[in-house]
Amino acid sequence: MNILVLGAAGMVGRKLVERLVRDGTLGGRRIERMTLFDVVAPVAPEGVPFQVRVAAGDLSQPGQPERLVADRPDTIFHLAAIVSGEAEAEFEKGYRINLDATRALFEAIRHSNHGYTPKVVFTSSIAVFGAPFPDEPIGDTFHRTPLTSYGTQKAIGELLLADYSRRGFFDGVGIRLPTICVRPGRPNKAASGFFSGIIREPLNGQEAVLPVADTVRHWHASPRAAVEFLIHAATIDTAPLGQRRSLTMPGLSVTVAEQIEALRRVAGDAVAARIRREPDPTVMRIVEGWPQRFSAKRAEEFGFRAEQSFDDIIRVYIEDELGGRVPA
Amino acid sequence: MNILVLGAAGMVGRKLVERLVRDGTLGGRRIERMTLFDVVAPVAPEGVPFQVRVAAGDLSQPGQPERLVADRPDTIFHLAAIVSGEAEAEFEKGYRINLDATRALFEAIRHSNHGYTPKVVFTSSIAVFGAPFPDEPIGDTFHRTPLTSYGTQKAIGELLLADYSRRGFFDGVGIRLPTICVRPGRPNKAASGFFSGIIREPLNGQEAVLPVADTVRHWHASPRAAVEFLIHAATIDTAPLGQRRSLTMPGLSVTVAEQIEALRRVAGDAVAARIRREPDPTVMRIVEGWPQRFSAKRAEEFGFRAEQSFDDIIRVYIEDELGGRVPA
Repeated sequence: MNILVLGAAGMVGRKLVERLVRDGTLGGRRIERMTLFDVVAPVAPEGVPFQVRVAAGDLSQPGQPERLVADRPDTIFHLAAIVSGEAEAEFEKGYRINLDATRALFEAIRHSNHGYTPKVVFTSSIAVFGAPFPDEPIGDTFHRTPLTSYGTQKAIGELLLADYSRRGFFDGVGIRLPTICVRPGRPNKAASGFFSGIIREPLNGQEAVLPVADTVRHWHASPRAAVEFLIHAATIDTAPLGQRRSLTMPGLSVTVAEQIEALRRVAGDAVAARIRREPDPTVMRIVEGWPQRFSAKRAEEFGFRAEQSFDDIIRVYIEDELGGRVPA
Repeated sequence: MNILVLGAAGMVGRKLVERLVRDGTLGGRRIERMTLFDVVAPVAPEGVPFQVRVAAGDLSQPGQPERLVADRPDTIFHLAAIVSGEAEAEFEKGYRINLDATRALFEAIRHSNHGYTPKVVFTSSIAVFGAPFPDEPIGDTFHRTPLTSYGTQKAIGELLLADYSRRGFFDGVGIRLPTICVRPGRPNKAASGFFSGIIREPLNGQEAVLPVADTVRHWHASPRAAVEFLIHAATIDTAPLGQRRSLTMPGLSVTVAEQIEALRRVAGDAVAARIRREPDPTVMRIVEGWPQRFSAKRAEEFGFRAEQSFDDIIRVYIEDELGGRVPA
């Protein structure tokens, strides 16, 4: 089979590609060809027993989506997006990439030759939800009232995905990713960055800043779980989804205090002591609008699975990023 | 004040203009100028003590929205849309008018001179909802899962309206209209047409066809109530809306049997006998996906009001369309 990964140079995209290369198959079918696309050229995996094409470009440029679907990929993973903070800072860029390019991709598929109906896996986000929230966990029928332009663009993507699927132009599945934790790499300036930072930096011998109260609760899954969601979404039977094509992915609802306790259990007191509390009113205000917990019943019924404890989320980071060992 | 009405030649648009002309004011401010726009030139009202400009055109054409907002209307009523059946039959036309033109209008406002933040009243629809529904009435936090391209386009319009309002580009209010009943005029081919037809045709001495079982339940409001919703939406204080800018309008949930009973009470047995039952499996299947009743609590808290009985809905038709008298 032929697979197209859009946003293949991003953190989750890279891990998805690694996984597909390792498996060599998707849903029991042998992978024969893969195209990796991003705004910067993704690194081609080495020693791969099938053809890998790497391409860089702007998905919102006329003709780009058409070129990418010209060889009729069976499965398209659409992870390409301007992240939340940037889409908020740059209004036009956010709409151009997150809305226009997504729609252009869907249109390119629609205009392809008759009978081409690929599987399209679209990464949405819990940013489609916005406060005020109910006291109980947010269920599968709760409305999407995003509080950012990014969340708005993802919610629109979900609506288009459903309409194009209903029309039979492709077979779409949208997955609303939890906050991905522990993100590997250097600290970034995203308002949510500290959720990963307070685990990652201490494990790497560095100090981390905690800008919110440790009573703050949020919804997490590991990068490994995110990749598993994508693979699973690409292989489930979509008929039972009906017209409701997007699903809130399972995750783990924990407080910051519970994150820190898990870090202490997994890595010891000395590591957990590397967290410095420095309340930041701006971050605190932003985080107040974020969802805290979901009841992802529908996704669970479809077989999606996430971590059951934050200890496991930390262990995934140690295994996948630190070679299984906590540095002294 | 200066008012722009988009979709002014449509049934609700015409009635809105009549009402504004009669009032001469909106929210206590004297109307000084009005622009009526539609794809066919709206009829200019006569003897009006203020300036009325009439224009015909395609809102999706480049430059058209910019021309319409150039004189900085204080309030914009955006009723222009391709109706449900047509948007389903003509995929591209529906997206072009219902999505692209709406977005182009919003963009034209955003690109206007600094400090121009008009009130924008956007007509959405209960078509943003799609089955399966809960057993209880659909509440204000139920998700939007449209089952038509029209409903998809309206749901996207709601999301854009909220994001542009949040950004401060304008001050938007979206109102999800119930099915409007009794629609005046000739029978049309809309799947929902019979809800009005079984009242209108008998009152006009003609036979009406009922294509569904009389147990079918649906959500109605009169054209007069729809105009009142629009006026009210244009004048409410939007601060308490927060970021949730679209509201399900109140309406009346009745079965077809209850509609017919009301007709009998208001107009007599002979009139009610003009309904012929001729089940149509296609219409029956379409209607199954439609919502049956809402709990429009939030709109009611904001002071929106609809009819309390179907007898009243019939009387509105008789008063407004038949000069207050039922033809023999």
